[in-house]
Amino acid sequence: MAKQRGKLIVISGPSGAGKSTVVFKALEGRSDCCFSVSATTRKPRPTEVDGREYFFVDPDRFKEMIANDELLEHAEYVANSYGTPRAYVEKKLDEGMNVILDIEVQGALQVHEKMPEAILIFFIPPSMEELEKRLRGRGTDSERKIQARLYRAKEEYALADFYNYIIVNDDADVAANEFSAIITAESCKFEDRKFYLSEV
Amino acid sequence: MAKQRGKLIVISGPSGAGKSTVVFKALEGRSDCCFSVSATTRKPRPTEVDGREYFFVDPDRFKEMIANDELLEHAEYVANSYGTPRAYVEKKLDEGMNVILDIEVQGALQVHEKMPEAILIFFIPPSMEELEKRLRGRGTDSERKIQARLYRAKEEYALADFYNYIIVNDDADVAANEFSAIITAESCKFEDRKFYLSEV
Repeated sequence: MAKQRGKLIVISGPSGAGKSTVVFKALEGRSDCCFSVSATTRKPRPTEVDGREYFFVDPDRFKEMIANDELLEHAEYVANSYGTPRAYVEKKLDEGMNVILDIEVQGALQVHEKMPEAILIFFIPPSMEELEKRLRGRGTDSERKIQARLYRAKEEYALADFYNYIIVNDDADVAANEFSAIITAESCKFEDRKFYLSEV
Repeated sequence: MAKQRGKLIVISGPSGAGKSTVVFKALEGRSDCCFSVSATTRKPRPTEVDGREYFFVDPDRFKEMIANDELLEHAEYVANSYGTPRAYVEKKLDEGMNVILDIEVQGALQVHEKMPEAILIFFIPPSMEELEKRLRGRGTDSERKIQARLYRAKEEYALADFYNYIIVNDDADVAANEFSAIITAESCKFEDRKFYLSEV
């Protein structure tokens, strides 16, 4: 069977939606998926390896990457820049890998504009009440931080209308099965397989 | 969790693609799917029950169903009429069931026009050589019949460009997993779940 190109899978959702747990569970036993590696101006920590955790670049090189349209999206966090190198993603897609990119809604919108074929999945908890309960249950955030996260979640919900799929993480096994199913189903799309029909 | 409406899943593909085997395998353990029940002017066989194998109707009633737009598609086989009653399908979809409809490409095109939200899946063997091998392997068809089936398959391939998905049945387990994944993924579509985002 001819090797199909992989898909770029963008995942977003509020802190507390349980995205990471679900995705790691879904990827157990799937060798056709990998995570994207971001470029950053942040200094590497002792255990970090360039090209594994991040591509470490200096601020001038980062600016150049933006100017040359080498990034699918980029954003600033705590005085450092982070971005998704298009070349790395394209290389993995060409190898047939599905590349998973975990970013916020604003970044997802940039990716959606630069690569319209990307699959966008929005993870949510079953309700805002449940989200609040989960955030409190962690016991790590101040009341003010919890309120800020809930406010941020509502903001993201209002902007999420360009996503392709919604996964409601009520039960992590169900959600993981849905995530895996989306990746499998997307690889069966007519456009990606129509070459089979002309090989007759 | 609110009950989502089911999806109409139309499946087609040449005789020898192994559609039925794959679909039955995929439906083991899924209680959210059922097959559509066709209306027919054919006389019931002794073991057949009206509303189970078919809805048995007389030719006048069948003509009336066509005239009233009560059928999602219809066709003639061996002097009998067969069609898919829209009311039955809608009822099952409203109950949250995914309804599976196994029809030829011409019928699928009619469904696609009357119910554009239907999901259309085209099953194919890995190659025409493999299809020919499978048809011969059955030992039931004459050479002339085999050639007619191959010709018919090529005709269908040329008309299948309105399908949403292609499943290549090389390994029945892989194909069954893909079929099941498509149904699961389709239920995660943004449009079907966006009500979660407004319930905040």
